[in-house]
Amino acid sequence: MSNAKALPLLERSEAPVAAVPCCPPLSERPFTAEEAERTARMFKALGDPVRLRLFSAVASHEGGEACVCDISDVGVSQPTVSHHLKKLKEAGLLTSERRGTWVYYRVEPSVLAAMGQLLAVR
Amino acid sequence: MSNAKALPLLERSEAPVAAVPCCPPLSERPFTAEEAERTARMFKALGDPVRLRLFSAVASHEGGEACVCDISDVGVSQPTVSHHLKKLKEAGLLTSERRGTWVYYRVEPSVLAAMGQLLAVR
Repeated sequence: MSNAKALPLLERSEAPVAAVPCCPPLSERPFTAEEAERTARMFKALGDPVRLRLFSAVASHEGGEACVCDISDVGVSQPTVSHHLKKLKEAGLLTSERRGTWVYYRVEPSVLAAMGQLLAVR
Repeated sequence: MSNAKALPLLERSEAPVAAVPCCPPLSERPFTAEEAERTARMFKALGDPVRLRLFSAVASHEGGEACVCDISDVGVSQPTVSHHLKKLKEAGLLTSERRGTWVYYRVEPSVLAAMGQLLAVR
């Protein structure tokens, strides 16, 4: 990513950023610089086809969660899958939990709902 | 953008891509590669703080449209504003129309609604 330096990553990758619920709908009033910075991070995370497929695979999986073993069929290597899942976590879109051998990923419905609200038509 | 080569731009910048309404909610089933390619383009367009502020400025402006003269207060130069507005148009998020001296930008409510549906929680 060309502007990775401008978007500081979390120190603790386990902790998602609660960034989406920060802001009113995009059509309510012009976003401030700070609101735009926080919100752009989430849109950017979904602005990559592989990440979008992984996100969709997790979001649509039974129970709203999936293990890496369930969602690796996106035509890229396992390290690349892990890299993109980490980016989605850093953007606050996924959370993860290790259970035994596998790490399970989950989409927080509140995050999806908050992103949907950003796009609400006034 | 580091992966600009992978996302071919439109030849005719005046013609928006009708990309958003293509796809079911992200949580309905895993996206195909083609769906992800089309949809990622829109999220990527909103994944930049300056573009997000410009988009929000247009979307929240009276009547749902704004002239460049109305929305240039985002701390970047006029050529940069024009560059980002062009990107938003190429992604199908804005349309534009020249009237006299000024070009007016408009957010299509159907595009916002379709993006909102992508994020619907099942």
